Amino acid sequence: MIKITELAHRQVAEALHGGGRCLAVDATAGGGRDTLFLARLVGPGGHVYTFDIQQEALDQTAALLKQACLTDRVTLVRAGHERMAEYIENAVSAVVFNLGYLPGGDKSIATSSETTLIALRQALHLLRPGGIVTVIAYPGHALGKIEREAVFEFCRSLHSNTYAVSHLTLINREYEPPELFSITKY
Amino acid sequence: MIKITELAHRQVAEALHGGGRCLAVDATAGGGRDTLFLARLVGPGGHVYTFDIQQEALDQTAALLKQACLTDRVTLVRAGHERMAEYIENAVSAVVFNLGYLPGGDKSIATSSETTLIALRQALHLLRPGGIVTVIAYPGHALGKIEREAVFEFCRSLHSNTYAVSHLTLINREYEPPELFSITKY
Repeated sequence: MIKITELAHRQVAEALHGGGRCLAVDATAGGGRDTLFLARLVGPGGHVYTFDIQQEALDQTAALLKQACLTDRVTLVRAGHERMAEYIENAVSAVVFNLGYLPGGDKSIATSSETTLIALRQALHLLRPGGIVTVIAYPGHALGKIEREAVFEFCRSLHSNTYAVSHLTLINREYEPPELFSITKY
Repeated sequence: MIKITELAHRQVAEALHGGGRCLAVDATAGGGRDTLFLARLVGPGGHVYTFDIQQEALDQTAALLKQACLTDRVTLVRAGHERMAEYIENAVSAVVFNLGYLPGGDKSIATSSETTLIALRQALHLLRPGGIVTVIAYPGHALGKIEREAVFEFCRSLHSNTYAVSHLTLINREYEPPELFSITKY
């Protein structure tokens, strides 16, 4: 099975040329898998900022990092990703969004179009040239569909002289599978 | 700039795990760049079959291969890709399609929906599990748009238990850029 999260990880790893000593952001901690991936990728000299509004998500992420002995290189922030600019000053190499709700958690607590677009604008502002922003969106449920449309229109509006934007879908599924948006800054 | 041909090459290289000793097919020789890429990828023990109906395309491809000293591992076939099954018996690891017309050549000679779909069916039949078929389509001109729709519907109809199909578009362009379809066999 193609996993859209793995495709996103590959693109991030390629954009970082194997990573090392750079800043990365997990805009949606969730279960912590993206943070763990980024923490490995940036290496001992790098740092990851991870955002989530739910303590449960940050706790799960902290547990994963502890297991992998990677706690030192990650800052967990209990705040929505629309506030990332308050916490980060330097240019970042990668920002990873995995929208929707915490798997196995409270489904009424999910990302929303408004805050996601604010966060995306901040992410692009923080992004260094050559860096990448990836967004996985879930059109399979009603609010996810609205959010997916908002992300699509936002991505489509980005100037092609400054950003390359690709949109990947898995087209032979019966249900509406997650979609991957990737924005690279020139 | 993101180049869709480079994205296709990356996917093929990943599917072949660095390649080596396998069979690959360039379904549309064109200027020969895909054949050259595949010839390098399959290595000394592998082989590439390259199809084109135009002698001009095969000549350009032959010249590229000669320059790279890779002539030995490629069979150039002057035939439409809808006849690939007549020439290949063993399972192949990758089949690469770059639709449309020969760059700089006669634009009235282009791939067509009917023969492309026949070729795609043969390609999937020849494909070994784990192998990949990539198709770059050009919806920017009228016939290319029809062909793109045909490929899209064909890809969407493939059974998700047997094939993973991804569709990649570059969404922040003013014109209609090429699109990449990738089919992996489980």
